[in-house]
Amino acid sequence: MVAQGSTTLDRSEVERLVRDVLRQKLRGQINPPLQREQHATATAGKGGPPHPLVVNVSARHMHVTQENLEILFGKGAKLTKLKDLYQDGEFASEQLVTVVGPRQRIVPNVRILGPIRNYTQIELSYTDGIYLGIDLPLRISGNHENTPGCTVLGPSGAIHLSSGIIRAQRHVHMSTEDMAYYGVKDGDEIKLRIDGPSGLTFDHVKVRYHPKVILEVHIDTDEGNACDLESATNMELIK
Amino acid sequence: MVAQGSTTLDRSEVERLVRDVLRQKLRGQINPPLQREQHATATAGKGGPPHPLVVNVSARHMHVTQENLEILFGKGAKLTKLKDLYQDGEFASEQLVTVVGPRQRIVPNVRILGPIRNYTQIELSYTDGIYLGIDLPLRISGNHENTPGCTVLGPSGAIHLSSGIIRAQRHVHMSTEDMAYYGVKDGDEIKLRIDGPSGLTFDHVKVRYHPKVILEVHIDTDEGNACDLESATNMELIK
Repeated sequence: MVAQGSTTLDRSEVERLVRDVLRQKLRGQINPPLQREQHATATAGKGGPPHPLVVNVSARHMHVTQENLEILFGKGAKLTKLKDLYQDGEFASEQLVTVVGPRQRIVPNVRILGPIRNYTQIELSYTDGIYLGIDLPLRISGNHENTPGCTVLGPSGAIHLSSGIIRAQRHVHMSTEDMAYYGVKDGDEIKLRIDGPSGLTFDHVKVRYHPKVILEVHIDTDEGNACDLESATNMELIK
Repeated sequence: MVAQGSTTLDRSEVERLVRDVLRQKLRGQINPPLQREQHATATAGKGGPPHPLVVNVSARHMHVTQENLEILFGKGAKLTKLKDLYQDGEFASEQLVTVVGPRQRIVPNVRILGPIRNYTQIELSYTDGIYLGIDLPLRISGNHENTPGCTVLGPSGAIHLSSGIIRAQRHVHMSTEDMAYYGVKDGDEIKLRIDGPSGLTFDHVKVRYHPKVILEVHIDTDEGNACDLESATNMELIK
């Protein structure tokens, strides 16, 4: 049972550790980017679903208007692609911002996901919200009614958002044939079952229809960590 | 849809913000204590369960041997009570330590939970583990086989644990009459259903028997945030 051994570090070693940590803090390397992307698939087979089930964890991110992008990154700034996301045309940009909460706590390295949107929005986990001191409302992307705001810092300037900070409601992107297979329609809710050592079943996974999407569930980092998606042995959408 | 307004902050304002943030970092106030305690009860009624169902979120914490406590807090150090926990005799102490991960990232203000144990152990969430760079094994308290270690700093000294860092498996403390009511025995697993806007059903909630405990489920902060326990409308243990 008791497998831990402990050794005493001498004072100079402790001082070195503390110095290293402070130096690192000053370089701004302390707060976690938490950009882990988890991804798992179940094969689509004969008589099975039209598309394989893909579940992705959305790390904290920002969507941005061209106007706000130019305040943050300078006149004429453009989003440049770091890598493609699962949905066609969507991408993680190279642009990073710092989110400043009401108590002056910050989360640096928040990535902007492209393309440019017609609204500016920041999606955080509850863990982030508690840390920043922001009471995050649970919303579907784009619904900013009664949502809080924050200050965002970029290399060329800062913006103060009066609203647009949300926790994204867990959702599944579906095409017409996906909805037909699962017997649901746009706006319905379905369950997502994750089997594994930290298995669980999520309720209220909102169906979001778009003719051009392919089947993909989005959960946030709290949800991905709660079920330890990386160790999932099976995943299933159930009614 | 587009409810956010944005205003440009001038350069001096941005500089002030950054200065404030750096100053705060130096004072070590940046990393989140995340000591949110969530608590909800369902009344025990006639013909109902012998005890009300209580679900608590365990924030990151440490258990400690007397020997390690004295290295961290000085010779003859004792745990002093900050507040009682739900189980009789368990308490949150006033003693806080700093956990240093392998990449020199730190999590300060990790609270020691008393009383003194015969092993030293640190329980973190996966969010913490990813941040620190520690691949946390899922374990029942006290099982340290093949678990990683870390460095822990206290005001009087530091220890290097060679093992004992875990993610605690979700579990439910039950007395004999609780086990009889739910039809389970020590070591069984049961499900915990949380209804609400972020509702879900946790599998693999391990039953832990002790003659003196009262019914209480423990989940970690990732799990508590995933289901937004604070907004739960109903909770239920189901087989």
